Amino acid sequence: MATSGNINPDDLASLRERIDGIDRTIQELIAERAQFAGQVGRAKGKLAAAVDYYRPEREAQVLRRVVDRNDGPLGDEVLVRLFREIMSACLAQQEPLKIGFLGPEGTHSQQAVYKHFGHSIHGLPLGTIDEVFGEVQSGAADFGVVPVENSTQGTIQSTLDMFLSSQVKICGEVELRVHQHLLSRSGRIEDIERVYSHPQSFAQCKAWLRQYLPDAEKIPLASNAEAARRARSADDAAAIAGISAANVYGLKAVAGPIEDRPDNTTRFLVLGRELFPPSGNDRTSLLIFIKDQPGALHHVLAPFARHGLSMNRIESRPGHTGRWQYAFFVDIGGHVEEDAVRAALDELAAFAQEVKVLGSYPVAIT
Amino acid sequence: MATSGNINPDDLASLRERIDGIDRTIQELIAERAQFAGQVGRAKGKLAAAVDYYRPEREAQVLRRVVDRNDGPLGDEVLVRLFREIMSACLAQQEPLKIGFLGPEGTHSQQAVYKHFGHSIHGLPLGTIDEVFGEVQSGAADFGVVPVENSTQGTIQSTLDMFLSSQVKICGEVELRVHQHLLSRSGRIEDIERVYSHPQSFAQCKAWLRQYLPDAEKIPLASNAEAARRARSADDAAAIAGISAANVYGLKAVAGPIEDRPDNTTRFLVLGRELFPPSGNDRTSLLIFIKDQPGALHHVLAPFARHGLSMNRIESRPGHTGRWQYAFFVDIGGHVEEDAVRAALDELAAFAQEVKVLGSYPVAIT
Repeated sequence: MATSGNINPDDLASLRERIDGIDRTIQELIAERAQFAGQVGRAKGKLAAAVDYYRPEREAQVLRRVVDRNDGPLGDEVLVRLFREIMSACLAQQEPLKIGFLGPEGTHSQQAVYKHFGHSIHGLPLGTIDEVFGEVQSGAADFGVVPVENSTQGTIQSTLDMFLSSQVKICGEVELRVHQHLLSRSGRIEDIERVYSHPQSFAQCKAWLRQYLPDAEKIPLASNAEAARRARSADDAAAIAGISAANVYGLKAVAGPIEDRPDNTTRFLVLGRELFPPSGNDRTSLLIFIKDQPGALHHVLAPFARHGLSMNRIESRPGHTGRWQYAFFVDIGGHVEEDAVRAALDELAAFAQEVKVLGSYPVAIT
Repeated sequence: MATSGNINPDDLASLRERIDGIDRTIQELIAERAQFAGQVGRAKGKLAAAVDYYRPEREAQVLRRVVDRNDGPLGDEVLVRLFREIMSACLAQQEPLKIGFLGPEGTHSQQAVYKHFGHSIHGLPLGTIDEVFGEVQSGAADFGVVPVENSTQGTIQSTLDMFLSSQVKICGEVELRVHQHLLSRSGRIEDIERVYSHPQSFAQCKAWLRQYLPDAEKIPLASNAEAARRARSADDAAAIAGISAANVYGLKAVAGPIEDRPDNTTRFLVLGRELFPPSGNDRTSLLIFIKDQPGALHHVLAPFARHGLSMNRIESRPGHTGRWQYAFFVDIGGHVEEDAVRAALDELAAFAQEVKVLGSYPVAIT
């Protein structure tokens, strides 16, 4: 039978009683919260569908406060998850949000959906990124979630290009950590003489490899999947790959996560049909069409600097609508309803052929 | 811009203030709960790994109380999920539970893992049911989750058969609802003249079909995947299948969930290495080896009836250890530490060649 360490049974009983008391109060408060949330969603005596009163800027504010006042023992990430689930449950009392994502179920996109919206939603797995845009545009989905950037593989161009023609708005971003594992057939570190992986994965796990496998040969390959495939056919080889490759290729996890820094992330965008008000810490994504003329890029960037706006990302793409035209995707700090952003956009209008505001949305929380 | 129905902005601000106050208190209580849980897990001044103080019977009791005192507005299932997550977070403060399951990620088995253990765990996707048993047995996984029964397809024999040779114990069960959707190429119900599906899926969605597609031809096929495959190549056909088939076969969801009763479930077993004490509402799984002689089955069943124990399931399997031997998997109400069960087992010992207690565990909660 299981034991609870060295704790005295009386102490254990009294600890559990206190926990039970806490649970009772938490439950009362959650019910009260759901009632108040219901009042927010009630118009003309009838509770509205979640999409009609979902407010991303408000959720971001709530979660930031959760992080600000957290002083343990639980981590910020765990607490944010718990509060997302509580908000998700309160919001879904009538008709839950319908969220389109790049399926099938079990993908990182689905994880990003749950991370951002909680589990009290209705997920719609779709076959392509195009379809996610389409279902959001048509209203079949209330929101969509698409990957846009991977810290190891860079920008997902097909997502950015959708914005050239689509009218959907960005109303959120989600960052998801992706972990690396060391996988091998035997699962024993002492058998490993060679390690296969993508060069970027080697770079991510450098310190770990130096500490635990200093003498193993490192063999770079085109992908981590290829690495796992090769590790399968040798007793003395291992691969660095995501844990799911262990199952697909019949390998065992030797160790993991083994990346040196916990910042190996994929960034997703939340798509909707409208812009939401500022949350206080926002990002604005712009699509700027300019003529290819000397100094054009400088003219485009200068207004942001002049108004003290940080630029998080710039990506140029060939435009589709004119011969000499180029398009830039630019992410800046701030919200289009804020003065500095508005002023910069006014100045930008003098140089750009067109500026499309793709969205202003809360910066991702944990 | 989004609006919040007809609500007066002052009322909205005051509602939000009250919600903020509630959130602050919930957060304080969760932190306090985590501290107390930490004290339960602390022996000799050091916080133990989750596996050393995880108590399934205690969790079941906590969750039953949550259900008992719930009087809305949130549903039992949502509240149970929230409290599972809170307990999961409190438990994972040092080293989270490692849970093996039948991968890859995104399967129903993974959903069952999260439903039972919350998200603050370390999931190990494995390639086969054998491996889940093996990793639990060896200690590489703290617990495992395997499917054992589907309300439409019946018992998963390969799981049951593992118990014939394995020493792992059942220490929990999870029930997961599986939903049916109507899928077609166009996604428009007015285009549908034929519906493909497995006969059991037709049976599950009978009332819905009668109401919405009374004139469509119903064509039974061997599987829902085959149904989806066929629906892909016709404009006037639809399939009844799980929503994930929509993505795999490039179909759109016309409607769903469309099953008439919400009891289309898959049952999973939680595997561990030890038995836990009673939770107050438990089930016991037995593997009974008997000689094939007249009246043998009656002798096996009689003690349970005599001691007022309900029998939830009986399944006969050819035994592997003797020529005339048969094995029965039997689930009864109660826990092996309870008098009635103990007495029935004592009586059973007179007739059975061997009785193996596979586990005594809390009945699944919502």
